[in-house]
Amino acid sequence: MRATVMYGAGDVRVEDVPDPVLREPTDAVVRVLRSCICGSDLWPYWSMPPSERGRPMGHEFLGVVEDTGADVPGLRAGDVVVAPFVWSDGTCDFCREGLQTSCRHGGQWGGDTGGGQGEAVRVPQAPGTLVKLPGGVDEALLPSLLTLSDVLCTGHHAAVKAGVSPRTSVTVIGDGAVGLCAVLAARRLGAEQIVLMGHHKDRTDLGREFGATDVIAERGDEGAEKVRELTGGDGTHTVLECVGTGEAIAMSLGAVRDGGVVSRVGAAQYTEVPMDFGTFLRNITLTGGVAPARAYIEDLLPDVLEGRIQPGRVFDDAIGLEDVPDGYRAMAERAALKVLIRP
Amino acid sequence: MRATVMYGAGDVRVEDVPDPVLREPTDAVVRVLRSCICGSDLWPYWSMPPSERGRPMGHEFLGVVEDTGADVPGLRAGDVVVAPFVWSDGTCDFCREGLQTSCRHGGQWGGDTGGGQGEAVRVPQAPGTLVKLPGGVDEALLPSLLTLSDVLCTGHHAAVKAGVSPRTSVTVIGDGAVGLCAVLAARRLGAEQIVLMGHHKDRTDLGREFGATDVIAERGDEGAEKVRELTGGDGTHTVLECVGTGEAIAMSLGAVRDGGVVSRVGAAQYTEVPMDFGTFLRNITLTGGVAPARAYIEDLLPDVLEGRIQPGRVFDDAIGLEDVPDGYRAMAERAALKVLIRP
Repeated sequence: MRATVMYGAGDVRVEDVPDPVLREPTDAVVRVLRSCICGSDLWPYWSMPPSERGRPMGHEFLGVVEDTGADVPGLRAGDVVVAPFVWSDGTCDFCREGLQTSCRHGGQWGGDTGGGQGEAVRVPQAPGTLVKLPGGVDEALLPSLLTLSDVLCTGHHAAVKAGVSPRTSVTVIGDGAVGLCAVLAARRLGAEQIVLMGHHKDRTDLGREFGATDVIAERGDEGAEKVRELTGGDGTHTVLECVGTGEAIAMSLGAVRDGGVVSRVGAAQYTEVPMDFGTFLRNITLTGGVAPARAYIEDLLPDVLEGRIQPGRVFDDAIGLEDVPDGYRAMAERAALKVLIRP
Repeated sequence: MRATVMYGAGDVRVEDVPDPVLREPTDAVVRVLRSCICGSDLWPYWSMPPSERGRPMGHEFLGVVEDTGADVPGLRAGDVVVAPFVWSDGTCDFCREGLQTSCRHGGQWGGDTGGGQGEAVRVPQAPGTLVKLPGGVDEALLPSLLTLSDVLCTGHHAAVKAGVSPRTSVTVIGDGAVGLCAVLAARRLGAEQIVLMGHHKDRTDLGREFGATDVIAERGDEGAEKVRELTGGDGTHTVLECVGTGEAIAMSLGAVRDGGVVSRVGAAQYTEVPMDFGTFLRNITLTGGVAPARAYIEDLLPDVLEGRIQPGRVFDDAIGLEDVPDGYRAMAERAALKVLIRP
């Protein structure tokens, strides 16, 4: 089959690889219907040392079950399934607590499972990992359903961990796909004031359609000051940090109200957070982390299926599998926000 | 009257100062029955630059109302009251939310209110600040009631913000008065496994009486490793950080289970917390801060009055007002854990 393999920074190739096969009784093989390129795929795209073996890419996908092991009850060939961006057994204590990203028998796509940016994937722990969609899904819904793999659940995780409710004001930092999904999630949870911080007008315009009530283009101290100005000097009850840089975290601490919560889902590219004596006196909470997408898919699915939310609008480009290297380039050059792949 | 004034590092004097008088209609004057020296009083004791004017000391006290302004309904001369370690109006949005430490019209003892380590104090915002005790309180209860000013409420704040419950394992970092009160608070909230980290045997022995099930004397990485050993490699669901050093915070992050909460009430003497990519992948929450003691006093009061908890046992020395300089010395030299003052 054809699949995307990264061999080093800037070196993404689509090439022939062996078809995935079942190895464990709990495996399934899934033929990919839709996948996409993630902002986090750009990190190795910018920095990966050259590798002879290469790394299969892609951790967001939905597809059709092609084959199942002996111990995969409830799934059979032909089922349409969504895969969250890590796999998990669904039975360990962490999974039962809804923290599937810490599953005791889980792991990440790539390596010997293959990745979503290919024609098919071997899915370990298929009963715990995959979520079956109802039959006869409208093809037009596939982009929105695909966001259940990662970005919608990640934005939702930020909002849930922050405790967003109709009583909380919200700042969302970042107008990337996760930030926009965080706006959607905050609105869905009832937030009435949602301040979106971002400086790409086409994206912040979509953010307004998703529920943002205010947009702030300024960054750093100036950006935080603008949030405080909008909130009588206080800052917002919650800040959903969807970027992951040290600057974004510092700005979050400046934009949050005393007693408030900074919830981070932008993958931390910093090693320290300035949770200093000032934040101590203000009782600021820092929470969040990598999203256990699997915990949220069933909750969010009805709103997606019934069209009440349309997170698939974060995709602003769609390509075939052979064009994936161009898709990486477009995202790296910020010519595209998030690129959908139809293998 | 006589009162304690600090003039610089190591320079604590008890001297004659003017008697406090009402200034605002919401003021009360309270004659101090019991006060104490706080671990945080040692910071200026170690580092305060010389000052000609000096700083009135003491932020924990209980006493008898001597005089009230025109706008202090519900309190009158003779009432016995507890004062939390900051004053607050009780009516602003932060106070109504239970975050009296961020009160819009609040402040700290010292300066022109005077401090608890004196014969009397002017209490601003008396209706919001003071909590009236039932008449005829047994004198033997006064030390435990005094801990409602600060250390018991601070330990309780750590436990509450961490979400301690019968379902959570707990690590308490620090065997000072706050750490011991955190053990008491965690036990009171139903925690069954409470690991106390401290290396002063007399204090950890009291910690065991307060509810600690395990004691770990090791510190740093070794200490965190011991906590993980006690918990099947995982760490505890919650860590109550009652020290405030960078080392203690780092150890907290090493001792907490994936998805868990580090709740800090040790006043932050660091400027950065290593909430890095590893803690992001583990979904660790950092919460806590300076305790809004006022929010908790009514909740905790019945258990103290009825003797179900005896937080006053953290006092291991009691002195008169004239001996306060010796009390500071004893605490600074760690000859005493926490010194009670009877003016």
